[in-house]
Amino acid sequence: MSYLDNVKIVLVETSHTGNMGSAARAMKTMGLTNLCLVNPVIKPDSQSISLAAGASDIIKQAQIFSSLEEAVADCSLVIGTSARPRSLQWPNLTPKECGDKIIAEAACHAQVALVFGRERVGLTNDELQKCHFHVGIPANPDYSSLNLAMSVQVLSYEIRMSMLSTQNSSLKLDHQDVIEYPKDEDIERFYQHLEQTLLQTGFINPNHPGQIMGRLRRLFTRARIEQQELNILRGILTSVDKRQ
Amino acid sequence: MSYLDNVKIVLVETSHTGNMGSAARAMKTMGLTNLCLVNPVIKPDSQSISLAAGASDIIKQAQIFSSLEEAVADCSLVIGTSARPRSLQWPNLTPKECGDKIIAEAACHAQVALVFGRERVGLTNDELQKCHFHVGIPANPDYSSLNLAMSVQVLSYEIRMSMLSTQNSSLKLDHQDVIEYPKDEDIERFYQHLEQTLLQTGFINPNHPGQIMGRLRRLFTRARIEQQELNILRGILTSVDKRQ
Repeated sequence: MSYLDNVKIVLVETSHTGNMGSAARAMKTMGLTNLCLVNPVIKPDSQSISLAAGASDIIKQAQIFSSLEEAVADCSLVIGTSARPRSLQWPNLTPKECGDKIIAEAACHAQVALVFGRERVGLTNDELQKCHFHVGIPANPDYSSLNLAMSVQVLSYEIRMSMLSTQNSSLKLDHQDVIEYPKDEDIERFYQHLEQTLLQTGFINPNHPGQIMGRLRRLFTRARIEQQELNILRGILTSVDKRQ
Repeated sequence: MSYLDNVKIVLVETSHTGNMGSAARAMKTMGLTNLCLVNPVIKPDSQSISLAAGASDIIKQAQIFSSLEEAVADCSLVIGTSARPRSLQWPNLTPKECGDKIIAEAACHAQVALVFGRERVGLTNDELQKCHFHVGIPANPDYSSLNLAMSVQVLSYEIRMSMLSTQNSSLKLDHQDVIEYPKDEDIERFYQHLEQTLLQTGFINPNHPGQIMGRLRRLFTRARIEQQELNILRGILTSVDKRQ
Protein backbone atom coordinates (compact mmCIF):
# COMPACT_ATOMS: atom_id res chain seq x y z
CA MET A 1 0.00 0.00 0.00
CA SER A 2 1.52 3.24 -1.12
CA TYR A 3 0.40 6.84 -0.67
CA LEU A 4 -0.10 6.82 -4.41
CA ASP A 5 -3.08 4.48 -4.03
CA ASN A 6 -4.97 7.40 -2.47
CA VAL A 7 -4.52 9.55 -5.54
CA LYS A 8 -7.10 9.61 -8.34
CA ILE A 9 -6.45 10.97 -11.78
CA VAL A 10 -9.77 12.26 -13.14
CA LEU A 11 -10.19 12.92 -16.87
CA VAL A 12 -13.27 14.95 -17.78
CA GLU A 13 -14.99 14.33 -21.14
CA THR A 14 -11.93 13.03 -22.92
CA SER A 15 -12.60 12.87 -26.67
CA HIS A 16 -9.87 10.60 -27.95
CA THR A 17 -9.45 7.08 -26.65
CA GLY A 18 -5.81 7.25 -27.69
CA ASN A 19 -5.33 10.01 -25.15
CA MET A 20 -6.82 7.82 -22.43
CA GLY A 21 -4.35 5.09 -23.26
CA SER A 22 -1.38 7.45 -23.27
CA ALA A 23 -2.55 9.04 -20.04
CA ALA A 24 -2.88 5.62 -18.41
CA ARG A 25 0.62 4.79 -19.46
CA ALA A 26 1.96 8.10 -18.13
CA MET A 27 0.24 7.44 -14.79
CA LYS A 28 1.59 3.94 -14.47
CA THR A 29 5.18 4.97 -15.17
CA MET A 30 4.87 7.18 -12.11
CA GLY A 31 3.16 4.51 -9.99
CA LEU A 32 -0.39 5.89 -10.13
CA THR A 33 -3.19 3.42 -10.80
CA ASN A 34 -6.59 5.01 -10.07
CA LEU A 35 -8.08 6.42 -13.23
CA CYS A 36 -11.55 7.99 -13.21
CA LEU A 37 -13.33 9.01 -16.40
CA VAL A 38 -16.11 11.57 -16.26
CA ASN A 39 -18.45 11.33 -19.25
CA PRO A 40 -15.84 10.15 -21.70
CA VAL A 41 -17.00 11.08 -25.20
CA ILE A 42 -16.07 7.56 -26.26
CA LYS A 43 -15.80 4.70 -23.80
CA PRO A 44 -12.43 3.01 -23.46
CA ASP A 45 -12.02 0.69 -26.41
CA SER A 46 -9.45 -1.50 -28.02
CA GLN A 47 -7.55 1.53 -29.32
CA SER A 48 -7.14 3.03 -25.87
CA ILE A 49 -6.14 -0.37 -24.53
CA SER A 50 -3.60 -0.82 -27.30
CA LEU A 51 -2.12 2.66 -26.79
CA ALA A 52 -1.89 1.99 -23.09
CA ALA A 53 0.62 -0.76 -23.93
CA GLY A 54 1.56 -2.36 -20.62
CA ALA A 55 -0.85 -0.08 -18.78
CA SER A 56 -4.05 -1.61 -20.11
CA ASP A 57 -4.87 -2.75 -16.56
CA ILE A 58 -5.32 0.91 -15.64
CA ILE A 59 -7.81 1.42 -18.48
CA LYS A 60 -9.70 -1.77 -17.70
CA GLN A 61 -10.05 -0.86 -14.03
CA ALA A 62 -11.00 2.76 -14.74
CA GLN A 63 -14.17 3.94 -13.03
CA ILE A 64 -16.67 5.85 -15.12
CA PHE A 65 -18.81 8.64 -13.63
CA SER A 66 -21.47 10.87 -15.08
CA SER A 67 -20.33 14.01 -13.26
CA LEU A 68 -17.20 15.46 -11.75
CA GLU A 69 -19.06 15.77 -8.46
CA GLU A 70 -19.58 12.01 -8.24
CA ALA A 71 -16.02 11.27 -9.25
CA VAL A 72 -14.57 13.33 -6.43
CA ALA A 73 -17.28 12.62 -3.85
CA ASP A 74 -14.93 10.71 -1.53
CA CYS A 75 -12.02 13.12 -1.92
CA SER A 76 -10.91 15.61 0.69
CA LEU A 77 -8.64 17.46 -1.69
CA VAL A 78 -9.44 18.28 -5.31
CA ILE A 79 -6.96 20.03 -7.57
CA GLY A 80 -7.92 21.14 -11.06
CA THR A 81 -5.56 21.70 -13.96
CA SER A 82 -5.77 24.88 -15.93
CA ALA A 83 -3.62 26.26 -18.71
CA ARG A 84 -4.41 29.80 -17.62
CA PRO A 85 -4.27 29.64 -13.83
CA ARG A 86 -3.55 33.27 -13.17
CA SER A 87 -6.52 34.63 -15.02
CA LEU A 88 -8.81 33.28 -12.32
CA GLN A 89 -8.84 34.47 -8.76
CA TRP A 90 -8.09 31.17 -7.12
CA PRO A 91 -5.31 29.59 -5.10
CA ASN A 92 -2.77 28.50 -7.68
CA LEU A 93 -0.07 25.90 -7.27
CA THR A 94 3.04 25.20 -9.25
CA PRO A 95 3.38 21.57 -10.38
CA LYS A 96 5.84 20.91 -7.57
CA GLU A 97 3.58 22.46 -4.94
CA CYS A 98 0.74 20.38 -6.35
CA GLY A 99 2.78 17.19 -5.95
CA ASP A 100 3.73 18.12 -2.41
CA LYS A 101 0.18 18.96 -1.42
CA ILE A 102 -1.23 15.77 -2.90
CA ILE A 103 1.32 13.60 -1.13
CA ALA A 104 0.94 15.46 2.17
CA GLU A 105 -2.78 14.66 2.17
CA ALA A 106 -2.53 11.19 0.67
CA ALA A 107 -0.03 10.30 3.38
CA CYS A 108 -2.77 11.04 5.93
CA HIS A 109 -5.03 8.45 4.26
CA ALA A 110 -7.17 11.07 2.57
CA GLN A 111 -8.45 10.49 -0.94
CA VAL A 112 -7.24 13.20 -3.30
CA ALA A 113 -8.09 13.96 -6.92
CA LEU A 114 -6.20 15.66 -9.70
CA VAL A 115 -8.62 16.69 -12.43
CA PHE A 116 -7.84 17.20 -16.14
CA GLY A 117 -10.26 18.83 -18.56
CA ARG A 118 -11.24 18.32 -22.19
CA GLU A 119 -8.51 18.22 -24.83
CA ARG A 120 -9.52 21.50 -26.44
CA VAL A 121 -11.21 23.59 -23.82
CA GLY A 122 -10.06 22.23 -20.47
CA LEU A 123 -12.31 22.46 -17.43
CA THR A 124 -15.32 24.77 -17.30
CA ASN A 125 -15.41 27.57 -14.78
CA ASP A 126 -18.00 25.60 -12.79
CA GLU A 127 -15.68 22.62 -12.65
CA LEU A 128 -12.69 24.75 -11.70
CA GLN A 129 -14.70 26.23 -8.88
CA LYS A 130 -15.24 22.76 -7.44
CA CYS A 131 -11.47 22.50 -6.96
CA HIS A 132 -9.61 23.58 -3.86
CA PHE A 133 -6.61 24.59 -5.87
CA HIS A 134 -5.64 25.06 -9.47
CA VAL A 135 -2.38 23.95 -10.99
CA GLY A 136 -0.82 25.01 -14.27
CA ILE A 137 2.35 23.92 -16.00
CA PRO A 138 4.32 27.11 -16.75
CA ALA A 139 4.76 26.44 -20.45
CA ASN A 140 6.21 28.50 -23.27
CA PRO A 141 3.72 31.36 -23.67
CA ASP A 142 4.14 31.18 -27.45
CA TYR A 143 3.28 27.49 -27.59
CA SER A 144 1.65 26.32 -24.42
CA SER A 145 -0.40 23.41 -25.69
CA LEU A 146 0.86 20.37 -23.85
CA ASN A 147 -1.41 17.57 -24.87
CA LEU A 148 -3.44 15.74 -22.27
CA ALA A 149 -1.11 12.79 -21.75
CA MET A 150 1.94 15.06 -21.52
CA SER A 151 0.25 17.08 -18.80
CA VAL A 152 -0.65 13.89 -16.95
CA GLN A 153 2.98 12.82 -17.28
CA VAL A 154 4.45 16.02 -15.86
CA LEU A 155 2.04 16.33 -12.94
CA SER A 156 2.25 12.61 -12.12
CA TYR A 157 6.02 12.97 -12.17
CA GLU A 158 5.86 15.73 -9.55
CA ILE A 159 3.58 13.56 -7.41
CA ARG A 160 6.07 10.74 -7.59
CA MET A 161 9.03 13.03 -6.83
CA SER A 162 7.22 14.29 -3.76
CA MET A 163 6.43 10.77 -2.62
CA LEU A 164 10.04 9.68 -3.03
CA SER A 165 11.36 12.64 -1.10
CA THR A 166 8.76 12.12 1.63
CA GLN A 167 9.75 8.51 1.99
CA ASN A 168 13.22 9.86 2.54
CA SER A 169 14.12 7.19 0.07
CA SER A 170 17.47 8.65 -0.69
CA LEU A 171 17.38 8.05 -4.39
CA LYS A 172 21.08 8.11 -4.78
CA LEU A 173 22.03 5.82 -1.95
CA ASP A 174 19.85 2.93 -3.08
CA HIS A 175 22.70 0.91 -4.41
CA GLN A 176 25.96 0.91 -2.58
CA ASP A 177 28.61 0.84 -5.20
CA VAL A 178 31.05 -2.00 -4.97
CA ILE A 179 33.98 -0.15 -6.44
CA GLU A 180 37.29 -0.73 -4.80
CA TYR A 181 39.03 2.49 -3.86
CA PRO A 182 42.71 2.76 -3.02
CA LYS A 183 43.96 3.73 0.40
CA ASP A 184 45.09 7.26 0.84
CA GLU A 185 48.68 6.15 1.31
CA ASP A 186 48.62 4.47 -2.09
CA ILE A 187 47.32 7.63 -3.65
CA GLU A 188 50.08 9.61 -1.97
CA ARG A 189 52.63 7.20 -3.42
CA PHE A 190 51.11 7.81 -6.84
CA TYR A 191 51.47 11.58 -6.41
CA GLN A 192 55.11 11.15 -5.38
CA HIS A 193 55.72 8.98 -8.41
CA LEU A 194 53.92 11.45 -10.67
CA GLU A 195 55.97 14.37 -9.38
CA GLN A 196 59.20 12.41 -9.79
CA THR A 197 58.34 11.55 -13.38
CA LEU A 198 57.33 15.12 -14.23
CA LEU A 199 60.61 16.36 -12.81
CA GLN A 200 62.42 13.87 -15.02
CA THR A 201 60.55 14.83 -18.18
CA GLY A 202 61.27 18.46 -17.36
CA PHE A 203 57.61 19.40 -17.16
CA ILE A 204 58.12 20.55 -13.58
CA ASN A 205 61.05 22.86 -12.99
CA PRO A 206 62.48 21.95 -9.56
CA ASN A 207 63.32 25.60 -8.91
CA HIS A 208 59.85 26.84 -9.88
CA PRO A 209 57.45 23.96 -9.33
CA GLY A 210 54.44 26.26 -9.35
CA GLN A 211 50.93 24.92 -8.85
CA ILE A 212 51.18 21.91 -11.13
CA MET A 213 51.00 19.20 -8.48
CA GLY A 214 48.28 21.00 -6.59
CA ARG A 215 46.15 21.25 -9.68
CA LEU A 216 46.68 17.61 -10.60
CA ARG A 217 45.75 16.52 -7.09
CA ARG A 218 42.58 18.54 -7.33
CA LEU A 219 41.67 16.92 -10.66
CA PHE A 220 42.22 13.37 -9.43
CA THR A 221 40.57 13.98 -6.09
CA ARG A 222 37.48 15.27 -7.83
CA ALA A 223 37.35 12.10 -9.92
CA ARG A 224 37.99 9.89 -6.88
CA ILE A 225 40.41 7.44 -8.43
CA GLU A 226 39.44 3.78 -8.31
CA GLN A 227 42.00 1.06 -7.53
CA GLN A 228 42.09 -0.23 -11.10
CA GLU A 229 42.58 3.27 -12.45
CA LEU A 230 45.40 3.87 -10.02
CA ASN A 231 47.10 0.73 -11.33
CA ILE A 232 46.82 2.05 -14.88
CA LEU A 233 48.21 5.46 -13.91
CA ARG A 234 51.15 3.90 -12.07
CA GLY A 235 51.78 1.70 -15.13
CA ILE A 236 51.84 4.73 -17.38
CA LEU A 237 54.39 6.47 -15.17
CA THR A 238 56.58 3.38 -15.14
CA SER A 239 56.40 3.15 -18.95
CA VAL A 240 57.51 6.79 -19.18
CA ASP A 241 60.31 6.29 -16.64
CA LYS A 242 61.75 3.40 -18.61
CA ARG A 243 62.05 5.53 -21.72
CA GLN A 244 63.94 8.34 -20.01
CA MET B 1 17.92 35.43 -26.66
CA SER B 2 17.21 33.05 -23.83
CA TYR B 3 19.43 30.61 -21.96
CA LEU B 4 17.33 27.93 -23.56
CA ASP B 5 18.85 28.73 -26.94
CA ASN B 6 22.12 27.25 -25.68
CA VAL B 7 20.49 23.89 -24.98
CA LYS B 8 20.47 21.12 -27.58
CA ILE B 9 18.20 18.12 -27.41
CA VAL B 10 20.00 15.26 -29.15
CA LEU B 11 18.06 12.18 -30.25
CA VAL B 12 20.21 9.21 -31.19
CA GLU B 13 18.96 6.79 -33.87
CA THR B 14 15.30 7.48 -33.35
CA SER B 15 13.25 4.83 -35.17
CA HIS B 16 9.81 6.38 -35.38
CA THR B 17 9.19 9.70 -37.05
CA GLY B 18 6.10 10.08 -34.90
CA ASN B 19 8.34 10.14 -31.84
CA MET B 20 10.42 12.91 -33.37
CA GLY B 21 7.30 14.95 -33.89
CA SER B 22 6.05 14.38 -30.36
CA ALA B 23 9.49 15.11 -28.94
CA ALA B 24 9.66 18.37 -30.93
CA ARG B 25 6.29 19.35 -29.55
CA ALA B 26 7.33 18.52 -26.00
CA MET B 27 10.47 20.64 -26.44
CA LYS B 28 8.60 23.60 -27.81
CA THR B 29 6.03 23.65 -25.02
CA MET B 30 8.98 24.15 -22.68
CA GLY B 31 10.65 26.77 -24.88
CA LEU B 32 13.43 24.59 -26.32
CA THR B 33 14.12 24.84 -30.05
CA ASN B 34 17.44 23.16 -30.92
CA LEU B 35 16.85 19.60 -32.03
CA CYS B 36 19.76 17.43 -33.23
CA LEU B 37 19.21 14.03 -34.79
CA VAL B 38 22.05 11.52 -34.82
CA ASN B 39 21.58 8.88 -37.52
CA PRO B 40 17.80 8.90 -37.44
CA VAL B 41 16.60 5.54 -38.74
CA ILE B 42 14.10 7.44 -40.88
CA LYS B 43 14.58 11.07 -41.83
CA PRO B 44 11.95 13.52 -40.62
CA ASP B 45 8.97 13.18 -42.93
CA SER B 46 5.42 14.38 -43.27
CA GLN B 47 4.29 12.15 -40.39
CA SER B 48 6.78 13.65 -37.96
CA ILE B 49 5.85 17.11 -39.15
CA SER B 50 2.17 16.39 -38.75
CA LEU B 51 2.63 14.91 -35.26
CA ALA B 52 4.70 17.91 -34.30
CA ALA B 53 1.55 19.97 -34.81
CA GLY B 54 2.54 23.58 -34.16
CA ALA B 55 6.13 22.52 -33.56
CA SER B 56 6.95 21.60 -37.15
CA ASP B 57 9.45 24.47 -37.25
CA ILE B 58 11.57 22.53 -34.76
CA ILE B 59 11.58 19.45 -36.99
CA LYS B 60 12.32 21.43 -40.13
CA GLN B 61 15.28 23.20 -38.49
CA ALA B 62 16.63 20.01 -36.91
CA GLN B 63 20.30 19.35 -37.58
CA ILE B 64 21.28 15.85 -38.65
CA PHE B 65 24.61 14.30 -37.66
CA SER B 66 26.23 10.98 -38.41
CA SER B 67 27.70 10.52 -34.93
CA LEU B 68 27.05 11.62 -31.39
CA GLU B 69 30.56 12.99 -31.29
CA GLU B 70 29.81 15.43 -34.10
CA ALA B 71 26.53 16.46 -32.57
CA VAL B 72 28.14 17.47 -29.29
CA ALA B 73 31.47 18.73 -30.65
CA ASP B 74 30.76 22.33 -29.63
CA CYS B 75 29.27 21.43 -26.24
CA SER B 76 31.06 21.87 -22.93
CA LEU B 77 28.48 19.88 -20.98
CA VAL B 78 26.90 16.64 -22.18
CA ILE B 79 24.27 14.82 -20.14
CA GLY B 80 22.98 11.41 -21.21
CA THR B 81 19.66 9.88 -20.28
CA SER B 82 19.57 6.37 -18.93
CA ALA B 83 16.72 4.29 -17.60
CA ARG B 84 19.11 2.39 -15.38
CA PRO B 85 21.43 5.06 -14.09
CA ARG B 86 22.48 3.28 -10.93
CA SER B 87 23.79 0.20 -12.65
CA LEU B 88 26.70 2.19 -14.02
CA GLN B 89 29.29 3.82 -11.85
CA TRP B 90 28.87 7.35 -13.10
CA PRO B 91 27.80 10.69 -11.68
CA ASN B 92 24.01 10.54 -11.70
CA LEU B 93 21.63 13.45 -11.55
CA THR B 94 17.97 13.62 -10.66
CA PRO B 95 15.85 15.36 -13.31
CA LYS B 96 15.77 18.51 -11.18
CA GLU B 97 19.54 18.51 -10.70
CA CYS B 98 19.86 17.99 -14.45
CA GLY B 99 17.70 21.03 -15.15
CA ASP B 100 19.67 23.14 -12.68
CA LYS B 101 23.01 22.10 -14.09
CA ILE B 102 21.96 22.72 -17.69
CA ILE B 103 20.65 26.19 -16.89
CA ALA B 104 23.68 27.11 -14.77
CA GLU B 105 25.96 26.38 -17.72
CA ALA B 106 23.69 27.70 -20.46
CA ALA B 107 23.46 30.95 -18.51
CA CYS B 108 27.25 31.28 -18.90
CA HIS B 109 26.84 31.07 -22.68
CA ALA B 110 28.13 27.51 -22.91
CA GLN B 111 26.53 25.07 -25.32
CA VAL B 112 25.04 22.11 -23.52
CA ALA B 113 23.49 18.88 -24.80
CA LEU B 114 20.92 16.53 -23.34
CA VAL B 115 21.10 13.20 -25.15
CA PHE B 116 18.32 10.64 -25.57
CA GLY B 117 18.91 7.13 -26.89
CA ARG B 118 17.04 4.71 -29.09
CA GLU B 119 13.42 3.90 -28.29
CA ARG B 120 14.07 0.32 -27.25
CA VAL B 121 17.63 0.14 -26.08
CA GLY B 122 18.60 3.68 -25.11
CA LEU B 123 22.20 4.81 -25.38
CA THR B 124 25.08 2.38 -25.75
CA ASN B 125 27.72 2.18 -23.06
CA ASP B 126 30.15 3.95 -25.37
CA GLU B 127 27.70 6.79 -25.83
CA LEU B 128 27.01 7.00 -22.10
CA GLN B 129 30.71 7.21 -21.46
CA LYS B 130 30.92 10.33 -23.61
CA CYS B 131 28.57 12.06 -21.16
CA HIS B 132 29.69 14.00 -18.10
CA PHE B 133 26.59 13.04 -16.19
CA HIS B 134 23.72 10.65 -16.50
CA VAL B 135 20.14 11.47 -15.66
CA GLY B 136 17.30 9.07 -15.04
CA ILE B 137 13.64 9.68 -14.30
CA PRO B 138 12.88 7.73 -11.11
CA ALA B 139 9.94 5.82 -12.55
CA ASN B 140 7.78 3.04 -11.17
CA PRO B 141 10.15 0.07 -11.01
CA ASP B 142 7.34 -2.25 -12.13
CA TYR B 143 6.63 -0.20 -15.24
CA SER B 144 9.40 2.17 -16.01
CA SER B 145 9.02 2.55 -19.75
CA LEU B 146 8.36 6.21 -20.36
CA ASN B 147 8.33 6.63 -24.07
CA LEU B 148 10.82 8.91 -25.75
CA ALA B 149 8.60 11.98 -26.05
CA MET B 150 7.42 11.65 -22.45
CA SER B 151 11.02 11.59 -21.26
CA VAL B 152 11.78 14.64 -23.37
CA GLN B 153 8.73 16.33 -21.85
CA VAL B 154 9.70 15.66 -18.23
CA LEU B 155 13.36 16.63 -18.60
CA SER B 156 12.53 19.71 -20.70
CA TYR B 157 10.04 20.67 -18.02
CA GLU B 158 12.75 20.58 -15.37
CA ILE B 159 15.01 22.70 -17.58
CA ARG B 160 12.25 25.26 -17.94
CA MET B 161 11.50 25.23 -14.19
CA SER B 162 15.14 25.87 -13.46
CA MET B 163 15.24 28.72 -15.96
CA LEU B 164 12.15 30.31 -14.46
CA SER B 165 13.49 30.05 -10.93
CA THR B 166 16.85 31.46 -12.03
CA GLN B 167 15.08 34.37 -13.66
CA ASN B 168 13.01 34.91 -10.56
CA SER B 169 15.97 34.98 -8.26
CA SER B 170 19.11 36.03 -10.04
CA LEU B 171 20.72 35.21 -6.71
CA LYS B 172 21.55 31.75 -7.89
CA LEU B 173 23.64 33.06 -10.73
CA ASP B 174 25.73 35.25 -8.48
CA HIS B 175 27.16 32.13 -6.95
CA GLN B 176 27.87 30.32 -10.19
CA ASP B 177 31.43 29.25 -10.45
CA VAL B 178 33.19 30.70 -13.44
CA ILE B 179 35.17 27.62 -14.36
CA GLU B 180 35.98 27.36 -18.02
CA TYR B 181 35.43 23.94 -19.52
CA PRO B 182 36.95 22.77 -22.80
CA LYS B 183 34.87 21.85 -25.80
CA ASP B 184 34.34 18.20 -26.51
CA GLU B 185 36.49 18.38 -29.66
CA ASP B 186 39.44 19.66 -27.62
CA ILE B 187 39.03 16.81 -25.20
CA GLU B 188 38.97 14.36 -28.10
CA ARG B 189 42.27 15.83 -29.31
CA PHE B 190 43.71 15.29 -25.84
CA TYR B 191 42.67 11.61 -25.92
CA GLN B 192 44.27 11.19 -29.33
CA HIS B 193 47.47 12.76 -28.03
CA LEU B 194 47.39 10.60 -24.89
CA GLU B 195 46.93 7.42 -26.90
CA GLN B 196 49.75 8.39 -29.24
CA THR B 197 52.09 9.03 -26.33
CA LEU B 198 51.17 5.77 -24.59
CA LEU B 199 51.84 3.88 -27.82
CA GLN B 200 55.25 5.55 -27.98
CA THR B 201 56.15 4.74 -24.39
CA GLY B 202 55.05 1.18 -25.02
CA PHE B 203 52.37 1.27 -22.33
CA ILE B 204 49.76 0.44 -24.93
CA ASN B 205 50.56 -2.48 -27.17
CA PRO B 206 49.15 -1.61 -30.60
CA ASN B 207 48.27 -5.25 -31.17
CA HIS B 208 46.53 -5.64 -27.83
CA PRO B 209 45.34 -2.18 -26.82
CA GLY B 210 42.86 -3.58 -24.31
CA GLN B 211 40.66 -1.32 -22.24
CA ILE B 212 43.30 1.26 -21.31
CA MET B 213 41.93 4.19 -23.28
CA GLY B 214 38.36 3.39 -22.30
CA ARG B 215 39.26 3.38 -18.63
CA LEU B 216 41.23 6.60 -18.90
CA ARG B 217 38.36 8.29 -20.70
CA ARG B 218 36.03 7.19 -17.95
CA LEU B 219 38.31 8.59 -15.26
CA PHE B 220 38.70 11.97 -16.94
CA THR B 221 35.07 12.25 -17.94
CA ARG B 222 34.05 11.60 -14.36
CA ALA B 223 36.35 14.37 -13.18
CA ARG B 224 35.10 16.68 -15.92
CA ILE B 225 38.40 18.24 -16.95
CA GLU B 226 38.63 22.01 -16.71
CA GLN B 227 40.33 24.04 -19.43
CA GLN B 228 43.37 24.83 -17.28
CA GLU B 229 43.76 21.18 -16.34
CA LEU B 230 43.55 20.17 -19.97
CA ASN B 231 46.39 22.58 -20.70
CA ILE B 232 48.50 20.95 -17.98
CA LEU B 233 47.76 17.45 -19.23
CA ARG B 234 48.63 18.39 -22.80
CA GLY B 235 51.85 19.97 -21.51
CA ILE B 236 52.77 16.78 -19.67
CA LEU B 237 52.27 14.72 -22.83
CA THR B 238 54.41 17.11 -24.84
CA SER B 239 57.16 16.91 -22.20
CA VAL B 240 57.06 13.12 -22.41
CA ASP B 241 57.08 13.16 -26.23
CA LYS B 242 60.20 15.32 -26.31
CA ARG B 243 62.11 12.83 -24.19
CA GLN B 244 61.31 9.84 -26.38
